Parts: sequence; structure tokens; C-alpha cells
Amino acid sequence: MTTKQRIIAAALQLFNEQGEANVTTNHIAAHLGMSPGNLYYHFRNKNHIISAIFQQYSGHLRQSFAPVSEPTSPAMWFHYLDATFYGMWEFRFFYANLNDILQRDPELHKQYLLAQQELTINLQALLSALNRQQVLMIPEAEIAPLTDVLKLLASFWVSYQAAQSLVPNISQAVLYEGVSRVLLLLKPYFHPQFGLELANLMAHYQALSADPSDPFHK
Amino acid sequence: MTTKQRIIAAALQLFNEQGEANVTTNHIAAHLGMSPGNLYYHFRNKNHIISAIFQQYSGHLRQSFAPVSEPTSPAMWFHYLDATFYGMWEFRFFYANLNDILQRDPELHKQYLLAQQELTINLQALLSALNRQQVLMIPEAEIAPLTDVLKLLASFWVSYQAAQSLVPNISQAVLYEGVSRVLLLLKPYFHPQFGLELANLMAHYQALSADPSDPFHK
Repeated sequence: MTTKQRIIAAALQLFNEQGEANVTTNHIAAHLGMSPGNLYYHFRNKNHIISAIFQQYSGHLRQSFAPVSEPTSPAMWFHYLDATFYGMWEFRFFYANLNDILQRDPELHKQYLLAQQELTINLQALLSALNRQQVLMIPEAEIAPLTDVLKLLASFWVSYQAAQSLVPNISQAVLYEGVSRVLLLLKPYFHPQFGLELANLMAHYQALSADPSDPFHK
Repeated sequence: MTTKQRIIAAALQLFNEQGEANVTTNHIAAHLGMSPGNLYYHFRNKNHIISAIFQQYSGHLRQSFAPVSEPTSPAMWFHYLDATFYGMWEFRFFYANLNDILQRDPELHKQYLLAQQELTINLQALLSALNRQQVLMIPEAEIAPLTDVLKLLASFWVSYQAAQSLVPNISQAVLYEGVSRVLLLLKPYFHPQFGLELANLMAHYQALSADPSDPFHK
């Protein structure tokens, strides 16, 4: 691991644990036992670190939701839903504060929009492929607005949960609950033939969202 | 209109137009041609003004979504969907910055949670009533999580749209688009018998979300 990579990893951990707004570059340097000057040599300010983390995030989206010619279920469902969870959990500091972070760095905002555009195209292609395979039966005109709602749900589930509680409650179980909501929205569109498969998927993610070993679970 | 009411109305207008973070109590006083001392006599700080605006907001929610014994469609649908739009538009500054505003005022956050709780109960009762009337056919176990998603959609549509654009784009048309998304989510649960009524509703809100006279429309 290069020093640069160590800084990125430490920043991501501290941002997620303490909230991005509460973590300065000095905190990150101290956490690594590094002088502020050494950190500054690699990243001139916090926005540059966030931008480097964002590259990881958009790389995750690009790889996980890349189009495959013919998606096959059910392994495919676990892949996409787990990838949704991974993005929400691994980069939860970003979702907790999305608009603040984007508004103060127009360059990052542009990159975010490009990543979102690519994601939108990939998700729409995926839903269309599932329609063709007769796994889902989404009216063609609803694919675009439904994709929009799914993106909103995944992007603001963390903020919604933060608003719904006086104390921070962003646990893995809470984010798996968000993943079950994605399935809930798709449920009415499943071909009846996949009812059992859908029930299994729902049960899997509902179990993860009710993990009693999770100390933060409401 | 009392001075207190004038201050609340001016603050709401300025917050909505310029963003709450960009408006100080001095701006509000200047806008009203009032001395800062006079404003301070009525409201000791900006949080107190926001809290007064929030009372209007939760009053709107309480009245608009109060349970009626037997909701009758289709007038009922316009009532609830227009009330959703009104809340999103009239208090858009609040939705644009929800978590920041709640986090800095725990007392307001508590009131928000009470208002949300009441809204949740009312919305669930409404969906249950529509199920009983056989307008909707939502599996009983899905009423609670679906209500959750509808609340998330209405609460974070403004933030989502802000993230999706480099320039502010919160127009009435954009918010009507959010209202059509609420209908989109409910669409699969409509009894086939109400297909025409649903199509009319969708067309109505889609037309409002594509208003070409709206200078901000994308």
C-alpha cells in the first residue's frame, strides 16, 4: 500500500465512523502517525481526498452494474443487491452528506453526474434485459422513472434514516433494510413464475436487516 | 398580519428563494425594513423562526392527511397528491437541507419525529382504507414498508434533484414530477377497475411536470 492509498483508506474509515464534517486533514494525519506536512504533500486539501475516494466509489458502480448480455437469476440478484449494499455501506459518509459535499466542489459534482449518467444507462439496460427474459414485466415507458426512484432510494436511504432518528443509527442492518426496499419496489413487476425466487430473496435481505447481533439496530 | 407573522412569511420566502443557509436574521429584517433589534424582540435567533415555520408545516401535514372514514376517489386523489405537492413546494427550503436543519436543533428534531409519526399512522390508515374499498390491493404486510418509501420519496425528491444538477433546478414542474413518481409507485397496486381513473391522474400530474412555461424546467 502506498502512502497515498493509506491516506485514502484512513480518511474513508474516519469519515464513515465520525462523519465527514467532523474529520479534518489533521485528524487523518494524526490517525496515521504522519505529519500534516507529509499528508499535504500527497493531498492539498480534504476535497482532494474526497475526490480520490469518489474514484473508488464510481469504479465500484461501473464494475458492479456493468451490462452483461443476458443476466441470469437468481445468482445475478444477489450480485446486484449485494453491490447496492456494499456501495451504501462502504461510502456511507458520502450518502450522509451528499448535497453538501457536491455543492462545495463543482468538479466533483461534474464527475458525480457522469457516474450517475453511466449508472442510469446500465440500470435501464438491466431492467430491459430482465423484461426481455420475462423475469420482470415493467411497462416500457416506466423503466426510466422507476430507475430514477430506485436511484433516489439507494442514494437517500442513509439521509432518510438519519432524519428518522435522534441518534445516529446507520448500521449494516439499517442499510440492508434499504436493500429490501429496492426489492419491494420491484416486487409487483416480477413474473408470477418467479414468485418463489422472489420470496427467497426477500427473506434473505429481511433477515440481514433484522440482525439481532447488531448493537445499533432499532 | 402581526409583526411575528410578517417575519415568518418573509423568512419562508427568502429561505425558499435563496436557500436557508444563505439567509441571516439581518437579511430578513432588512427585507422587511425592520431593525435587527425589532426582529430579535420577536425571535431570538434563526432556529426560532425555523421552528415557527415548522409549526405551519406540521399543521399542513396534520390537516391534509387527517384520516377520513371512507376516502372516495377520484377527488380524494387530487386532494392528497396536491397536498403532497403543496408541502414540497411551500417548504422546499426545509427539504433541501433537512438533515442539517434537524441536526442543529434537537428540539425541532423531536417535533419533526412526532409529526412524522402522526403522518405515518395517517398514511397507513389511508392505504388500508383504500385496500378495504378495493381501490388498491396492497398486501397487508407491505403497507408499512411502502409508506416508508413514499415518505422517503416525498422528503428527499428535492435533495435528489439538487444532486442531479449543477445548477439549482427546484421548479414547480420538477416537484410535480416527484408527485407523479408517488403515483408510479402506487400504480401496480391499483385494482384493474380503476385503470382509467389512474391513467387520468397520471396524465394530469405528468402534464404539470412538463410545463413549458416554467423557465427552470430542464
